[in-house]
Amino acid sequence: MKIGVIGGGQLGRMLALAGTPLGQQFAFLDPAPDACAQALGEHIRADYSDTDHLRQLADEVDVVTFEFESVPAETVAFLSQFVPVYPNAESLRVARDRWFEKSMFQDLGIPTPEFADIQSQDNLDAAVKRIGLPAVMKTRTLGYDGKGQKVLRHPDDVVGAFAELGSVPCILEGFVPFTGEVSLVAVRARDGETRFYPLVHNTHENGILKLSIASTDHPLQAQAEDYVGRVLDKLDYVGVLAFEFFEVDGGLKANEIAPRVHNSGHWTIEGAECSQFENHLRAIAGLPLGSTAKVGESAMLNFIGEVPAVEAVSAIEHCHLHHYGKAFKAGRKVGHATLRCPDMATLKARIAEVEALIDK
Amino acid sequence: MKIGVIGGGQLGRMLALAGTPLGQQFAFLDPAPDACAQALGEHIRADYSDTDHLRQLADEVDVVTFEFESVPAETVAFLSQFVPVYPNAESLRVARDRWFEKSMFQDLGIPTPEFADIQSQDNLDAAVKRIGLPAVMKTRTLGYDGKGQKVLRHPDDVVGAFAELGSVPCILEGFVPFTGEVSLVAVRARDGETRFYPLVHNTHENGILKLSIASTDHPLQAQAEDYVGRVLDKLDYVGVLAFEFFEVDGGLKANEIAPRVHNSGHWTIEGAECSQFENHLRAIAGLPLGSTAKVGESAMLNFIGEVPAVEAVSAIEHCHLHHYGKAFKAGRKVGHATLRCPDMATLKARIAEVEALIDK
Repeated sequence: MKIGVIGGGQLGRMLALAGTPLGQQFAFLDPAPDACAQALGEHIRADYSDTDHLRQLADEVDVVTFEFESVPAETVAFLSQFVPVYPNAESLRVARDRWFEKSMFQDLGIPTPEFADIQSQDNLDAAVKRIGLPAVMKTRTLGYDGKGQKVLRHPDDVVGAFAELGSVPCILEGFVPFTGEVSLVAVRARDGETRFYPLVHNTHENGILKLSIASTDHPLQAQAEDYVGRVLDKLDYVGVLAFEFFEVDGGLKANEIAPRVHNSGHWTIEGAECSQFENHLRAIAGLPLGSTAKVGESAMLNFIGEVPAVEAVSAIEHCHLHHYGKAFKAGRKVGHATLRCPDMATLKARIAEVEALIDK
Repeated sequence: MKIGVIGGGQLGRMLALAGTPLGQQFAFLDPAPDACAQALGEHIRADYSDTDHLRQLADEVDVVTFEFESVPAETVAFLSQFVPVYPNAESLRVARDRWFEKSMFQDLGIPTPEFADIQSQDNLDAAVKRIGLPAVMKTRTLGYDGKGQKVLRHPDDVVGAFAELGSVPCILEGFVPFTGEVSLVAVRARDGETRFYPLVHNTHENGILKLSIASTDHPLQAQAEDYVGRVLDKLDYVGVLAFEFFEVDGGLKANEIAPRVHNSGHWTIEGAECSQFENHLRAIAGLPLGSTAKVGESAMLNFIGEVPAVEAVSAIEHCHLHHYGKAFKAGRKVGHATLRCPDMATLKARIAEVEALIDK
């Protein structure tokens, strides 16, 4: 079976590393000449709206999937004429727009921060009056890793903020005094079977994920699974989806979903029976899902800007390097390390060792 | 770092799957147009004695290694002029020839079956008189998976046997009434550090490996490590080496070595902290070695001739498919499954499930 992937970055690369042992082949459509997934499959170098090359991809592969959610709706609609596309167009439509996303959470009874649609500075002023400050203003589409957003703390911050974010449709979200950020990575098969990985504790820095630690028997696991299950069923979702939550007052408030394999699930390559990458491929290929059970205690640390010396990373016990083969650049995710340890005390010690390399 | 591999079959493929996350790139020199490793790197399609293309490979890569031991001595010597080659020429010279191999074992005080060099039918007749029947006659070079050998049970079998095996240099080995076959996979770094995986119990069928089960606290582990360590140090070996033994009377007798990653070590991909493939690459790249400790209880079953339906293999709990992407052909290794289970009872049950698929 040949899998088409829209996007050829590290997620495509890790999908191919997981799918090759299943006998799958890969083609990546990506305009970047140095797309790092091309080491593992065919690289169709074209823009995401280039219908000639999208058609070529559709003709070559058995199923198409996506590495990112900001793919144009037209691209999905075009591909769907010729080849099965997972996740489906509706899932991408909702996940790509923070207003649709939050509205769906509300419709499904999933708690969220207060939010408002912002189409003008007047809208913003009214919303701030209702929701209060501090609040976070985010573009409805195309934001990631802390980009396309602004924290409003004082009335002064509100002045001209709509123009500052580009005068594009935005959402205002009430500030949530969260005690932690967690994510649930889930997978849903074509036949509707759903499996969940353990909740992951995430730590961000400057809006970019820095550290994920997989939990054991987290008290909010069942609640998170309930919420994520509602979304998966509502969207008739197929594949892996990640759901980010705020922990507030011992409960969960929905932050956002990502309709794809997710950075907070990278630990599953070594840390779970079957990784998020293999499970995504199993789902879209119509294969039985794999076990989401943990193997040991695991954490993932992102390498942002540069990967420390391979010699140094390799010397850390229980450490597994994932180098994305991308050019180093400040703020860019260029690799990660997974730690898989026999117990939590060992894990904490190893995390400190990797952090020391990163901070060097 | 770019790694050159002589041979582009499943071992090259699995090396690349292990090395890509380390940031390594791969080039495979292999005359076969459908060499299955080409999905994961550059394919230089050329004969192993084609010096123009060997030179091209040497110029492109930082280090060269081998997927099989029957590589011509001239190829190794040629490459060594331009680029570091691991394992070294001496290791390949010894491992490729059963007479040199067994003689080295004897020199190092490692017990072996009785053996004799056979250059003619007269040699054979004399050796049979000394060693007795049954005995096994094997070509000194180029034998694998039970090919290039003949079991001599009765005096009639001896008549014309030298011509039957092609009138090429052979070795006669006394028959060993073994109770089991085990192998030890070891890795030695450039600085001489050596690590050993747990002993593996192997079951062959028609001369081809069928099932490998990793042991726990095997009573012969220390003895095996001692023997293998002698060979590694003698050869100043760098990389992974597999040593196959017969279990006889509660001790070990040396069968043969393979100077490369080995089929009986495939379970380490999921079943060990760091796989034989990653450890081979770490060794030849001058990186620190990874842990050879087991993760759970593991076994490997070969898929010979064909891979069962991916749906069926994926449905077995704790089962990890490795499809080599090769054309199916009777007697050909085309894939394997690793089972990694929490305990031995579960492992035994899962082995039976995979065997049922194979025998279908």
